[in-house]
Amino acid sequence: MKRTDYCGEVTEQQVGQEVVLKGWVQKRRDLGGLIFVDLRDRTGIVQVVFNPDFSGDAMEKADRLRSEFVVEISGKVCAREENQVNPNLATGRIEIQAGQVDIINESKTPPFVIQDATDTSEEIRLKYRYLDMRRPALYKTFKMRSDIMKTVRNFLADEGFLEVETPYLTKSTPEGARDYLVPSRVHEGEFYALPQSPQLFKQLLMVSGFDKYYQIVRCFRDEDLRADRQPEFTQIDMEMSFVGMEDIIALNEILMQKVMKDIKGIDMPIPFDRITYDEAMSRFGSDKPDVRFGLELKDISEIVKGSPFKVFSGAVSSGGQVKGINVKGAAADYSRKDIDALGEYAARYGAKGLAWLKVEEEGLKGPVAKFFEGETADGLVSALEAEPGDLLLFVADKRAVVADALGALRLKLGKERGLIDESRFAFIWVTDWPLFEYDEEDGRFYAAHHPFTMPVREDLPKLETEPQSVRAMAYDLVLNGFELGGGSLRIYERDIQEKMFSALGFTKEEANEQFGFLLDAFDYGTPPHGGIAFGLDRIVMLLSGAQSLRDVIAFPKTASASDLLVEAPSRVSGSQLEELGIKVLPENEPEVSDAEN
Amino acid sequence: MKRTDYCGEVTEQQVGQEVVLKGWVQKRRDLGGLIFVDLRDRTGIVQVVFNPDFSGDAMEKADRLRSEFVVEISGKVCAREENQVNPNLATGRIEIQAGQVDIINESKTPPFVIQDATDTSEEIRLKYRYLDMRRPALYKTFKMRSDIMKTVRNFLADEGFLEVETPYLTKSTPEGARDYLVPSRVHEGEFYALPQSPQLFKQLLMVSGFDKYYQIVRCFRDEDLRADRQPEFTQIDMEMSFVGMEDIIALNEILMQKVMKDIKGIDMPIPFDRITYDEAMSRFGSDKPDVRFGLELKDISEIVKGSPFKVFSGAVSSGGQVKGINVKGAAADYSRKDIDALGEYAARYGAKGLAWLKVEEEGLKGPVAKFFEGETADGLVSALEAEPGDLLLFVADKRAVVADALGALRLKLGKERGLIDESRFAFIWVTDWPLFEYDEEDGRFYAAHHPFTMPVREDLPKLETEPQSVRAMAYDLVLNGFELGGGSLRIYERDIQEKMFSALGFTKEEANEQFGFLLDAFDYGTPPHGGIAFGLDRIVMLLSGAQSLRDVIAFPKTASASDLLVEAPSRVSGSQLEELGIKVLPENEPEVSDAEN
Repeated sequence: MKRTDYCGEVTEQQVGQEVVLKGWVQKRRDLGGLIFVDLRDRTGIVQVVFNPDFSGDAMEKADRLRSEFVVEISGKVCAREENQVNPNLATGRIEIQAGQVDIINESKTPPFVIQDATDTSEEIRLKYRYLDMRRPALYKTFKMRSDIMKTVRNFLADEGFLEVETPYLTKSTPEGARDYLVPSRVHEGEFYALPQSPQLFKQLLMVSGFDKYYQIVRCFRDEDLRADRQPEFTQIDMEMSFVGMEDIIALNEILMQKVMKDIKGIDMPIPFDRITYDEAMSRFGSDKPDVRFGLELKDISEIVKGSPFKVFSGAVSSGGQVKGINVKGAAADYSRKDIDALGEYAARYGAKGLAWLKVEEEGLKGPVAKFFEGETADGLVSALEAEPGDLLLFVADKRAVVADALGALRLKLGKERGLIDESRFAFIWVTDWPLFEYDEEDGRFYAAHHPFTMPVREDLPKLETEPQSVRAMAYDLVLNGFELGGGSLRIYERDIQEKMFSALGFTKEEANEQFGFLLDAFDYGTPPHGGIAFGLDRIVMLLSGAQSLRDVIAFPKTASASDLLVEAPSRVSGSQLEELGIKVLPENEPEVSDAEN
Repeated sequence: MKRTDYCGEVTEQQVGQEVVLKGWVQKRRDLGGLIFVDLRDRTGIVQVVFNPDFSGDAMEKADRLRSEFVVEISGKVCAREENQVNPNLATGRIEIQAGQVDIINESKTPPFVIQDATDTSEEIRLKYRYLDMRRPALYKTFKMRSDIMKTVRNFLADEGFLEVETPYLTKSTPEGARDYLVPSRVHEGEFYALPQSPQLFKQLLMVSGFDKYYQIVRCFRDEDLRADRQPEFTQIDMEMSFVGMEDIIALNEILMQKVMKDIKGIDMPIPFDRITYDEAMSRFGSDKPDVRFGLELKDISEIVKGSPFKVFSGAVSSGGQVKGINVKGAAADYSRKDIDALGEYAARYGAKGLAWLKVEEEGLKGPVAKFFEGETADGLVSALEAEPGDLLLFVADKRAVVADALGALRLKLGKERGLIDESRFAFIWVTDWPLFEYDEEDGRFYAAHHPFTMPVREDLPKLETEPQSVRAMAYDLVLNGFELGGGSLRIYERDIQEKMFSALGFTKEEANEQFGFLLDAFDYGTPPHGGIAFGLDRIVMLLSGAQSLRDVIAFPKTASASDLLVEAPSRVSGSQLEELGIKVLPENEPEVSDAEN
């Protein structure tokens, strides 16, 4: 029979109607000669009752039902007695009086119970991902993911964007993260690379005059994985011609407003706040500040530069700085041991130590309090707006270390102290990025975003002389302390792009070998253009409240880049490799028994 | 200044208005002290006039303009004199009287002229793909492609389908075409494979209860390329639970109807015609028949089985067959030499010879006419509905060869003789497929669709004893002789899937190693499900009238799987390979000069 309704969508208005439902047995209970079955599909659960009075022959089959059996049930929708109503269930005011049941497929006892609250290990859940995804919370997440894509696509199509697919088998470029490579069979010894982003292709589409491009596209980075990274991830990618930064920002604010309205029912006011990179680093110790709470970093370098406390004055005199945060009213809550633990946490971010002071009625207390008296003490108290009961934490180090360590401490304490309104969505643009980052280990500059980012025009003369102070026409959108995405205006003139490659240490030959096609394209009438790319996985994670990217990707990889369900990666046959003209290095060959040799 | 309008969209209603346009110089002409510029963007062309009377200083800049320069022009919309109207241009009734022009970017003379009619080699066009795609015809194709995706997505979303992304880094499976492999750095010696289709993942989503899934997804096959193949191609992929074949067919007819309406403005009547695989092979010699014309294959085996012409009677007696087509009124048009050429064409499809007869008032003529007299001749004439002036062509061979050769001849002659109404779109479902194909070379059965296709229930007992006669619950949708897509109901019971693997020659161990996760999934309550996948590239090609898949893919690969634009595949560094634990076989190493050694 044809399904008439989804389980979770049967309503009181249907009382008296015959329905045909198909789904999974969530639970069976026997009670006083009756059999109750909770029937589940993607929309929810409905209660089915088997009763010898109206179920007849079906009683026998109902008795065979077990959890996760797939069944077809036909019956009549009935109102429940008032005292039987289940207010926790959308269908809680009705039940189905079963006339017939067909067992479509049976199920062994699953390795874990299909319910949202689970303490099953993630490893088991990933191995049986098809069961894990039966949990209603996961379905809801993927429904949300699908809905977000729909909102984004329709908005961009309405705005005149073309969806264009760019290649997945493309060229390896040494700049950026590590590439996934794909050996070529036709051109033995040569390799394709999976794209880290469609950056150059979308720029070439602008050279083609496509004007407005978008794609929701998979990207690949062979990096060591952290909690919030996956080898393959999805970007909402767009590019526009003949626009300035304000056009791109304005369009994307409307897009995000639409997503928040459609998906969360929230009216987000626009324009979003903006903050410069420098201010974000200075106030929050982060280029992706969570601005839902204060606990801001205060620079006290000037106050302590002459301090007898050498840790502070020494940091300042050697070009570093000293900053502090004021954990309001926390003095009594943190023992010396607790503060030591905070120090260890700060150490993970490079801090050599964490100085602290407690503010009491009588003044500053703590092991280093003796160094801060009189004017210096007053200065500290005033700079940190300290009152009795406050706990003050300080890091003295190079600027970057101070920002990292105090920024991380700020986030940790913000959560710990309940300072964050978790129901809030705080969007903020970070602007005025530096064009380059200097890598001390490699002794060279890297592109802070990517090598195709347009420098601020007035900074162009400094590209060769003073790269560290060149600003980029770049902007990141941050939500609740997570980078949702970043974009920039792009270089569209050959000479600027060549200077950029040169600043990054490319010889002319290297630049031509890797990016000659782009430089050539700039010779043939390239329009000014720019764009942005958002991490879809991150957006879904933040909007669904999921704890991990793995919860918002249907078939994710583990931290060691494995798919536990299909068991990938895996060994392949020697003949497959031979066709590709490659071999596995001997130390990676599987051990072979003598019998097989 | 902000762009106010696209070039191709300025209308007569705007006469008198000031506009700001941005685009490319298509052409500049100087005429009697005036300068005419055709300005182009993705929407089309508009004529801009520079005249010292109203252009002032801009005349000088206008004089510098060359083809493909990027410019910003502001000016006033004016009606053209009646005798200046260009009826071939959407904007042909107006022109822009330029006030200002800014040269945004210059252009070298492009390697070919940007216009639809081109005789530039495809190699040059692919190398400069960003210029090739400036041709209006290509932009139109990609706009159509984007529009088709939009129609499909919105229709499926409205029907309750979830867009779910499946992995691109997955597991190599030996069944099917050749995989593209991706070496793993973390698990050295192991490989991911790029998916040939998301078949198993979409089935697992059904096991998860997702109920309705779709994705427009890239697929990868490392096959030797033909004109209509690409290493990466795009599928419109969908899967549904608790449905039968009729549900899937009906839904997809509405989808195709919607696509034809939205994209081509054509009202396609549904339901589409259907034909069984056997009938298609018998009447058209093809499993993807072009039914826009007749020229059908007629079986004359019974008539000629006793013929003294041993080529015919021998074919029948050794289990083959003899079939003919009647090329109406063609007798006078085809010389002996022309017919020899047809014979050579048929030989490419395996035919050892092509017998022919011309029908004249006096009877059959031709070198083998002497074998066909009296009743046999009457039988032939009647079977082929032959009249004087007709040309009859025959192939006698094994069934498969007869179908291939005559099917190919039918298509060739259909085109040559102008029998095909090229404006027509003829959709037809091909049903009742065999489950297996027998490969004589390998001496084993292969899955005609894939190993997860549901056999017709009543044929299940023959799975082990008589696999060649087991029918599949499969259906292909064919448009104008091209397979648009194919689908099936899937196996959802472990024992049937195991029997299927066994019929394909898998040992139990092999089946478990490759597909254990799927067999396991069937143990935990798998719903009946089925789906279909369409080739998006093929659909765009047919609806846009493009001649090749390369014309509907933004950055396509050549027949040797190369990207001529970015030059992929390419050599990579030794350190990249070392990290992956692989090496290139010595014979594929690039030659290195002594100096570098």
